Amino acid sequence: MPNNETAPAPVVDVPRGLAGVVVTDTRLGDVRGREGFYHYRQYSAVELAQTRGFEDVWYLMIHGELPDAARSAAFARETAALRRLPDDIRAVLPAVARASAASGPLSALRTALSLFGAARGLRPVYDIDADRRRADVLAAAAVVPTLLTALHRLGGGLDPVEPREDLSYAANYLYMLTGSEPDPARARAIERYLISTIDHGFNASTFTARVVASTGADVAACLVAAIGALSGPLHGGAPSRALDTLDAIGSPDRIDPWIRDRVLAGERIMGFGHAVYRTQDPRSRMLRGIAQGFGGPRVEFAVEVERRVEAILAQLKPGRELHTNVEFYAGVVMELCGLPRSMFTPTFAAARVIGWGANILEQAEDSKIIRPAARYVGEKPPVPVPEPH
Amino acid sequence: MPNNETAPAPVVDVPRGLAGVVVTDTRLGDVRGREGFYHYRQYSAVELAQTRGFEDVWYLMIHGELPDAARSAAFARETAALRRLPDDIRAVLPAVARASAASGPLSALRTALSLFGAARGLRPVYDIDADRRRADVLAAAAVVPTLLTALHRLGGGLDPVEPREDLSYAANYLYMLTGSEPDPARARAIERYLISTIDHGFNASTFTARVVASTGADVAACLVAAIGALSGPLHGGAPSRALDTLDAIGSPDRIDPWIRDRVLAGERIMGFGHAVYRTQDPRSRMLRGIAQGFGGPRVEFAVEVERRVEAILAQLKPGRELHTNVEFYAGVVMELCGLPRSMFTPTFAAARVIGWGANILEQAEDSKIIRPAARYVGEKPPVPVPEPH
Repeated sequence: MPNNETAPAPVVDVPRGLAGVVVTDTRLGDVRGREGFYHYRQYSAVELAQTRGFEDVWYLMIHGELPDAARSAAFARETAALRRLPDDIRAVLPAVARASAASGPLSALRTALSLFGAARGLRPVYDIDADRRRADVLAAAAVVPTLLTALHRLGGGLDPVEPREDLSYAANYLYMLTGSEPDPARARAIERYLISTIDHGFNASTFTARVVASTGADVAACLVAAIGALSGPLHGGAPSRALDTLDAIGSPDRIDPWIRDRVLAGERIMGFGHAVYRTQDPRSRMLRGIAQGFGGPRVEFAVEVERRVEAILAQLKPGRELHTNVEFYAGVVMELCGLPRSMFTPTFAAARVIGWGANILEQAEDSKIIRPAARYVGEKPPVPVPEPH
Repeated sequence: MPNNETAPAPVVDVPRGLAGVVVTDTRLGDVRGREGFYHYRQYSAVELAQTRGFEDVWYLMIHGELPDAARSAAFARETAALRRLPDDIRAVLPAVARASAASGPLSALRTALSLFGAARGLRPVYDIDADRRRADVLAAAAVVPTLLTALHRLGGGLDPVEPREDLSYAANYLYMLTGSEPDPARARAIERYLISTIDHGFNASTFTARVVASTGADVAACLVAAIGALSGPLHGGAPSRALDTLDAIGSPDRIDPWIRDRVLAGERIMGFGHAVYRTQDPRSRMLRGIAQGFGGPRVEFAVEVERRVEAILAQLKPGRELHTNVEFYAGVVMELCGLPRSMFTPTFAAARVIGWGANILEQAEDSKIIRPAARYVGEKPPVPVPEPH
């Protein structure tokens, strides 16, 4: 609050919800809605997902360039060594899982990551140098899969599975969830999904992380706030809802009447439409390819639903360009890889935490707090306070 | 993320840090920096602090009007009954206090309130009606003093003190902290401080709470994010720093050289200057009066430091209007009331949580997500991804 330097700013009116208002410059990436293209740094995110491992893209987001072979191996070792939880955190997780049973895995993660940050004694980002900030971001992100899978297993009455350092981020995630080493095709499918979800423009949780970072708060404070924003229904990122749509339709002959009823009633079809993309969502396209690689009746049904919904929407809402979004095939792919639906959004968080971390690091290089204004529109003060009764 | 309706917004350029950018209308209050005046709803906040109890002002913030005698008593009973922690939360607090020893009381509160919200099974604010939202906000705010004092005592090897329902919010806070019922003058002094700190324009933690609320997340997610923002050094609200200044000066004869050295070295003097006020901070004025009511050498020294610093700043930085901010006498008053310095900022949080709650309720009436944009300024994509090594 105290600040000897700043003068009050003039009032600036902008669109509701700050839509389109440029709050910062970034070198992390962007989304081109009309082209159906998004990128991390200077590279197509989809191309990265198709050709690189998760750790390489994590390195790219944090360090600004893709690693060479030696750096890639060193970074994989460095982050794998951070997966194990301190004993005092592990000891509290059963109580966190029990207390969070009524509210779901993101609430449990929020508490557990807050505790992890506190136990690590994280310091404000403005009080430490860039190396220390990077170390904090890596440490916090590296335990997210460990926390998520431990809390999930504890919630189901199972013991957590200790992380393995010899597995990739993605393979270790599936291993900690199930207790068995995943087959390589499934591990790679989830890895590609995770890479494609690390970042996506200036979404609400990323903005939240940056607002908290702009106060100088520690990395855990920023990430915990972002998890809170991600848990909001308007943020989205709930791939299980698209599968619910597939289940509700049930069989190919019911597609047309089911969709027509919903569209004519003005309802949204979960898994279709995006705030930014005005053409196919490039993540959806990639994930469809992955799903089709596995094949099977579920995938064929999903492709048929996509085909019919797009045709019906084009007919009933001409010119609107409504396509599948990332949720649709993300749900199909995660199901094929054996993830339970309750872990779909947490899996998304396990990827997005990398993007949040990179955004926190970038924000910490700026020294200006993000602090807009509000316009008072109530009864004009000062009205004398009435005598207390 | 998915949204069938929104079109991409045009890009809008605004001042850095969104300074002066109007993000919302509010009926909760405002700060008039040039007049040295701030208000809650239509009433002077200082007048409220001088004439009303904490619960009445809390009611005003939540319900939009001051309560009559019957409503006042009912609201005090209603909120007092919410102070007690559920057994499962109480059982985890010792572990939270232990794990948070390295990072301070705000980190511990962040974890504990996150856990409380999860255990209560809070639902997204957009999925519940206004009554349920109000109930969630009251429940979460009412346990903040209980959590803060329990964590503080546990950190010092003491058992928590159970809340009492027959005491006011302020008196019960001091009671839970020390284990003894406070004398009425000290309880009233802290009550007036707490009232004066409930809200203060659109500060960074309040904005954070509203950003998270705008995604529709539950009340605990919003409050936990706000606590994170409050913990950032640029947010401020650290009254202990002003006392550190008094201690560093030490005695009246050292005031002038100490201050001159600092100002000539370009350093900030903690407890002086404010981003918005261009005249005396009205909170500082009120708190000085409270401190002088207690009297004693510490208060006389603080008043002398204030007088000399203002004179020296007026001489060395003419036209800058640098006065004591809320931190300066808040620290003096809290010290007089027996609060340890480590609890100064947490005490601030115990008041500000009321303002956050009122802001969450107001934001939840809006259906538009707060989601600005970033401008990509990195190397132009797409650059082909290099072959992996």
